[in-house]
Amino acid sequence: MRIDVLTLFPRMFEGPMGESIIGKAVEKELLEIKLHNFREYSDNKHQQVDDYPYGGGAGMLLKVQPIYNNLKAIEEETPNKNRRVILLDPAGKQFDQKMAEEFSQEEQLIFICGHYEGYDERIRSLVTDEVSLGDYVLTGGELGAMVMIDATVRLLPEVLGNKNSAQTDSHSTGLLEHPQFTRPADFQGMKVPEVLTNGNHKLIEAWQLKESLRRTYLRRPDMLENFDLTPEMEKMLEEIKIEEK
Amino acid sequence: MRIDVLTLFPRMFEGPMGESIIGKAVEKELLEIKLHNFREYSDNKHQQVDDYPYGGGAGMLLKVQPIYNNLKAIEEETPNKNRRVILLDPAGKQFDQKMAEEFSQEEQLIFICGHYEGYDERIRSLVTDEVSLGDYVLTGGELGAMVMIDATVRLLPEVLGNKNSAQTDSHSTGLLEHPQFTRPADFQGMKVPEVLTNGNHKLIEAWQLKESLRRTYLRRPDMLENFDLTPEMEKMLEEIKIEEK
Repeated sequence: MRIDVLTLFPRMFEGPMGESIIGKAVEKELLEIKLHNFREYSDNKHQQVDDYPYGGGAGMLLKVQPIYNNLKAIEEETPNKNRRVILLDPAGKQFDQKMAEEFSQEEQLIFICGHYEGYDERIRSLVTDEVSLGDYVLTGGELGAMVMIDATVRLLPEVLGNKNSAQTDSHSTGLLEHPQFTRPADFQGMKVPEVLTNGNHKLIEAWQLKESLRRTYLRRPDMLENFDLTPEMEKMLEEIKIEEK
Repeated sequence: MRIDVLTLFPRMFEGPMGESIIGKAVEKELLEIKLHNFREYSDNKHQQVDDYPYGGGAGMLLKVQPIYNNLKAIEEETPNKNRRVILLDPAGKQFDQKMAEEFSQEEQLIFICGHYEGYDERIRSLVTDEVSLGDYVLTGGELGAMVMIDATVRLLPEVLGNKNSAQTDSHSTGLLEHPQFTRPADFQGMKVPEVLTNGNHKLIEAWQLKESLRRTYLRRPDMLENFDLTPEMEKMLEEIKIEEK
């Protein structure tokens, strides 16, 4: 996979990219990542990338020209690729695991990270996706791009060492994960449930499934609405509803 | 404000913290931030921080002991502070702007960033909040902590240069932001709407309000459900519904 990031702050990516899964994917040559400072594409003699909004208002807007020219240069360097061009924007579609899975199928992802107050509206016409990380406001798009890259890259084949890992996490099975425990069996009086220590795998699996359902029911009942429950799960859920009354 | 981060990868924070609003807040002495590698608190001779889960399963879990001792050390160093202890976890409550506002009122925030497959359940008993960035799976909690810190710190008084900026963004007014434009008036045939260039501020404000409503109606109708519309807004929304049919 090839990833391009348009940002005014390429140095922000240094630590996260080196230390994380992203760095490992680059090392394994499963991923090529290129940071572009789009200021270099400004046709303005002061390399200006922002300007006042028409009609007034606080703050500055990113201009369309530097983004347009930077995208053109990338397209010339990497022709014939299936690509998504993603604008990080709080008014965009909310990023979720399904989108991460879609992204992981592409040959190329291009992220445009804004800063300042907003974008010239015409930048939106240059992209395939407008995506938001969640219902909160960030100073810039860089952290959002890193999050989306991390969520996507860990789904690429061979990136995670343990192939099961990407599949059993919360949000990828459709249920929240059950509680887990590791040694010691007793820490400051807080004990591991006995069922997990007795070695009966059938009982352990049933406990794990039920506690996974319980956590989802208590914390994210919305996730159960679109979930296909087996008869066993339905019975467990009835028990949970009585236990949690 | 004081922020403490418990992480096995403190270097991941270097780029983002130096370049962003977080770095500026530290420079202005509005924020003190301290990174802790909780491996240093392991009482194990190999400084082990993870172990196999009871009952089997893929992957490793973070042990409770190093986290417990690191938190204790922080509490001893900074007694008598109003603090929240935040566990980054996909099964947690979803982070949003309201939570960022709450966080920005605290004297101290402590973030615990996991890695590997998950946490020993007893770690949850040491925290005040379990928070998720969104419905997607990340390799670790570090990027999530950075996002939450960015969203929180920009709300601290005097951090953003322009005091209006934090208030007019999408998600803080309750509506998505209207389209914005900056120079040139014509770029590759894409033009700025005439109303924004004619200098009539009453017309401009009405256009901005209507387009803000339109964007929210088209992209995030859920945000309108809990929004108190003025009579003017209600009239606009009726027009929009007809125009967008």
